[in-house]
Amino acid sequence: MGTPIGVHFDVAQFTPFLGVWRGPGEGAYPTIPSFSYLEEAVFEHVGKPFLEYSRKTRHAVEGHPMHAESGWLRGSTDGRIEWMIAQPTGVVEVLEGTIETTKGGVAIDLSSTTIGLTGSAKRVQATRRRYEVTGDELIYDMYMAYGELPVTHHLHATLQRVD
Amino acid sequence: MGTPIGVHFDVAQFTPFLGVWRGPGEGAYPTIPSFSYLEEAVFEHVGKPFLEYSRKTRHAVEGHPMHAESGWLRGSTDGRIEWMIAQPTGVVEVLEGTIETTKGGVAIDLSSTTIGLTGSAKRVQATRRRYEVTGDELIYDMYMAYGELPVTHHLHATLQRVD
Repeated sequence: MGTPIGVHFDVAQFTPFLGVWRGPGEGAYPTIPSFSYLEEAVFEHVGKPFLEYSRKTRHAVEGHPMHAESGWLRGSTDGRIEWMIAQPTGVVEVLEGTIETTKGGVAIDLSSTTIGLTGSAKRVQATRRRYEVTGDELIYDMYMAYGELPVTHHLHATLQRVD
Repeated sequence: MGTPIGVHFDVAQFTPFLGVWRGPGEGAYPTIPSFSYLEEAVFEHVGKPFLEYSRKTRHAVEGHPMHAESGWLRGSTDGRIEWMIAQPTGVVEVLEGTIETTKGGVAIDLSSTTIGLTGSAKRVQATRRRYEVTGDELIYDMYMAYGELPVTHHLHATLQRVD
């Protein structure tokens, strides 16, 4: 191991997110059957003004890979944040929002400003993500507008820090 | 190690890309000084109809991290392919194009259909990427339209398979 690299000032507020997180999640949407999953999410940094992010889920019982996504979080010193995400389903997202300190940690809340879709992707119209870290627990809710539906709750998970 | 998972039929054409690649690259653009970098690129699969992709570059002399990006490649059985990419600079890309067999391998050529930019991102307007694998060598060229400029050559690299 080399000397640990300090967290860049622009992403210092994200420090509680840094690490590897695992736990169960639940998905629901008006157009599909509800489902359960196990997730591993990772937030890392290399000393630059962004975090690297990835998320992989697998079937809660059978263990096979389900969803995955990867991307980057950018910070600033005025509380405005940006999240760039690519998904293997043919979807890319740009989200913008805010980061706030909470009683025991930090919360981020972002809504999509751009959704990019490939020709084969499902018609996702808009998304919103709210993540809150309190100590070694990360809870998130994701919302999605799909087809003609408004932005609707889609995913909820409670993860524990494992590294 | 578990039993190796077979490559999904939709991405079987991408098989020559699978692995870890390293080598030097050169960047140039009318608005900036030319630069050199060392790159590591990874293409992986988990048996689903997409590849996971990541790319990290560092300074050719001083070794510090420079650019990074991550994303996913989707295939189909008709030669049409899709690439979803997120960048820490506040840019997301959807690219679509084709995959073709070449004399000694395979080549992909894609152009952006959507560019998503955060408020703090530079004004990238369009991109094109051409990657060719021949045996254990991967050569790519990337093009970018930035500001008022047309799609212009930006990056060239020659990588060797290391894993």
